[in-house]
Amino acid sequence: MCGRCLSEAVRVFKVENIKEHLEKSNFDSQALLKALSKHISEPVRIPLYVLRKLPNILRKKEYSFFVILGKKENEWKVLEIFNELPENVLGVAIDLGSTTIAFYVYDFLKNKLIKKFSIVNPQVKIGEDILTRLHFARKPENLKYINQITIEAINRELEAIDYKNIYYLSICGNTAMYQFLTNLPVDYLFIEPYTPVTNWYGVLEAKDLNLETHPLAKVFIFPCAGSFLGGDIIAGLYFSEIHKKEDGYYFYIDVGTNAEVILGNKDFLLTCAGAAGPALEGGIFDCGMQAEKGAIETVEIDILQKKIKYQTIGNELPTGICGSGVIDLVAQLFLNGLIFFDGKFSPVFFKERFKKVNDELAFIIAFPEETANKKEIYIKESEIKSFLKSKSAMFSMLYLLCKKTGIEFEDIKNFYIAGSFGNHIKVKSAVMLGMLPEIALERTIGLGNSAGKGALKFLKNANFSEIKDIMEKITYLELNVEPEFMKYFSGAQLIPNVNLEMFPLS
Amino acid sequence: MCGRCLSEAVRVFKVENIKEHLEKSNFDSQALLKALSKHISEPVRIPLYVLRKLPNILRKKEYSFFVILGKKENEWKVLEIFNELPENVLGVAIDLGSTTIAFYVYDFLKNKLIKKFSIVNPQVKIGEDILTRLHFARKPENLKYINQITIEAINRELEAIDYKNIYYLSICGNTAMYQFLTNLPVDYLFIEPYTPVTNWYGVLEAKDLNLETHPLAKVFIFPCAGSFLGGDIIAGLYFSEIHKKEDGYYFYIDVGTNAEVILGNKDFLLTCAGAAGPALEGGIFDCGMQAEKGAIETVEIDILQKKIKYQTIGNELPTGICGSGVIDLVAQLFLNGLIFFDGKFSPVFFKERFKKVNDELAFIIAFPEETANKKEIYIKESEIKSFLKSKSAMFSMLYLLCKKTGIEFEDIKNFYIAGSFGNHIKVKSAVMLGMLPEIALERTIGLGNSAGKGALKFLKNANFSEIKDIMEKITYLELNVEPEFMKYFSGAQLIPNVNLEMFPLS
Repeated sequence: MCGRCLSEAVRVFKVENIKEHLEKSNFDSQALLKALSKHISEPVRIPLYVLRKLPNILRKKEYSFFVILGKKENEWKVLEIFNELPENVLGVAIDLGSTTIAFYVYDFLKNKLIKKFSIVNPQVKIGEDILTRLHFARKPENLKYINQITIEAINRELEAIDYKNIYYLSICGNTAMYQFLTNLPVDYLFIEPYTPVTNWYGVLEAKDLNLETHPLAKVFIFPCAGSFLGGDIIAGLYFSEIHKKEDGYYFYIDVGTNAEVILGNKDFLLTCAGAAGPALEGGIFDCGMQAEKGAIETVEIDILQKKIKYQTIGNELPTGICGSGVIDLVAQLFLNGLIFFDGKFSPVFFKERFKKVNDELAFIIAFPEETANKKEIYIKESEIKSFLKSKSAMFSMLYLLCKKTGIEFEDIKNFYIAGSFGNHIKVKSAVMLGMLPEIALERTIGLGNSAGKGALKFLKNANFSEIKDIMEKITYLELNVEPEFMKYFSGAQLIPNVNLEMFPLS
Repeated sequence: MCGRCLSEAVRVFKVENIKEHLEKSNFDSQALLKALSKHISEPVRIPLYVLRKLPNILRKKEYSFFVILGKKENEWKVLEIFNELPENVLGVAIDLGSTTIAFYVYDFLKNKLIKKFSIVNPQVKIGEDILTRLHFARKPENLKYINQITIEAINRELEAIDYKNIYYLSICGNTAMYQFLTNLPVDYLFIEPYTPVTNWYGVLEAKDLNLETHPLAKVFIFPCAGSFLGGDIIAGLYFSEIHKKEDGYYFYIDVGTNAEVILGNKDFLLTCAGAAGPALEGGIFDCGMQAEKGAIETVEIDILQKKIKYQTIGNELPTGICGSGVIDLVAQLFLNGLIFFDGKFSPVFFKERFKKVNDELAFIIAFPEETANKKEIYIKESEIKSFLKSKSAMFSMLYLLCKKTGIEFEDIKNFYIAGSFGNHIKVKSAVMLGMLPEIALERTIGLGNSAGKGALKFLKNANFSEIKDIMEKITYLELNVEPEFMKYFSGAQLIPNVNLEMFPLS
């Protein structure tokens, strides 16, 4: 017998000639368990579905056959037996984001990622923001509806894969996404004290969630640590491996609708979350968009030449500006004297770039003739103010976590930034604006979709105790009961900061 | 919070005011687990079905509600939550016999058996004997059919109870019954080396067997120790508690289609099985029947008065003769010189009682005018011979087990006899015929349906490790590889026995 797959979530073995075990034990199941016991130390269970096939498959081809096993928390379950190995033995990691659902298809036989893609979360049609969806889902029939459209959207993608050979799913998402996915009442999720139904889903049966997979496929749902600290963050931390770091301290920063910031290492994970994100998320600004093709991601203003150079993702004609583009833009506006330290426009130069939008002053980044949809791309003064609030919240959270732990920014080994935001952010601009401390210039690492990558990591190593370890290390700091936070927050809304203690002018 | 039920299979708790736990943990599930942790040391899981109800039920009635938990091997599962306790919280123990299915309805709230009844196994219509059914079930569609009629028959009885409040089933039966119940292929069960698919079913979901119960009800299926040593024997041993006895040695004897004999105590359980049963089972003899109302169970012959006195179960008009009646009858025939020591008739006296049936001499026990169906009740010479084979097999098994272990019959503390046979057998007659050793006269205890009582015991104490302990202690002795057995067997076919070593005339 030999192992054919290196994953800790799904194992494939070839069992050869177990006639001897069969003669000794005189039970088909015992013979199989005996053969497997050489390779697996945890208990193994054989469900009825497999027992029904076992007697005949076991005796064919000179007692040689393939066994597929799936991991549960403290045991393995035999999921399938075959005389011939199927072409595919697949797992799918899913990052169930509120805007986008990302899929990672993993081939357990080849031990590699074979496909990744994403779709728009169908819940968007109910409401862009989560609060709208939560309100909608208060009626049980609406909850059921939102659950169904989510499952259907996922199933459409699974069906396009070889779904009968999907044996394991690993899913992460925020707390609301989880309760929509599993059809749990959300009534108490958006009223104080914001109580989720559960933090630990563990390993469920795909069929209990109506997911289209192999009939015995398992679904691991990453635990969540609180209503504001979802399973996507836990999956991201699991990917970042901060919780294993022995040297120094690390920041994990995730900017989405909210911003979640975690400071720690192998000894602790101190975390807080706040509304730092909105201004950096697509869809909030008039011309805002997600970090996808056509989004302006870097901006350079040459006031003497009266020129603006920008780069878009994919080098396509621009259709809007993404979060990292906004950071770059505001930094350039400030450096070129086009805004004051409080974010107000100074429309003395470059007048052709200013116009009124709904009675409000706005700065034009791209004129209609330059853009993909022939609509100008601009930023309003109120949008800049909104961004400055976001950047202030971000910096104040970093500062507060350091203060609480007595750690200096210099002691931070790395700033891990999650999401595509982390891949595109121009750290120099962020530092210049006082969004990140200066030390971040050299020490920032973009992780990409670390939540999705964490879910994918689970398909490879299924380390339940590591995930429980993360859960145990996490302490959540409630910002609204921290008076210092508001003090830091108001000062940090200016560029770069009014508080010299927080932001020494080095 | 207080426990409301003493069972180890199902527990009912009243949870009161868990607001405090909720405030500390801020997850509904965590609050419930915290409340339960005071009473339960094993891990507790809360399935989605319960999580979906939890947020609303938890907050009603000042945070007070009832929780029903069911035991799995190493953990408890929350099966239901209610604000008001239902009238019934039930379990059903089922002895799935090949002829009769016996039901025991247990009330977990009152901690008592509230109802017992039995039905005819619907498989009987396919064939009286198991071999016919096994042959029939070789075709997958026939297996499915036999599975369906079995499940349907059980469901009809469950539906007549408050089935939605049945939370636990405990089932025992022989190996063939198990594979029919769970729809497992029987192809290798009746060809050498008679390999069952599995020995350990563990705790299954009632819905996976299509049983009509509470949607989350658990089903424990007693393990079997071999194709000839089914879960009914394990359940019977579990009830008898031989495996715990510290003083001396014990026999457990079950006479059904086969006879199974176990010798042992807390240190070992040596077992063998053979075709000792048939002659004592209803349906084999022309006038044979099961030990039920109308069956002749004792016989007294007064050759001088030319009278036969008999007693029937329930004191009704006779309709046939059951196993224990046959033992009594043959003993009386021998004592009155109506048969020789080899079982042949000596039709010198009492001539009016002899007649030919299909060219064979037969003895009439009851004339047509005495019986319920106005048909005479008789025993043929070949039937007496067949009985003598059964009694010989029985005695030879007892003797062989003692020989193998070096134990004398005197060292046997008790002979436990399972089944209604054990309740009706006239031990004096059995000893006189050489079926049981003389010492059995004082030391025989009828256990009644010990298999069913073992299944019922599980609903009370759900002691998985005790059952595994039985499994580990059992050693199975194959009679057909024991040359001594055939030697004992031929000698013991005479009355009482030709082998003085085996049967000293004390």
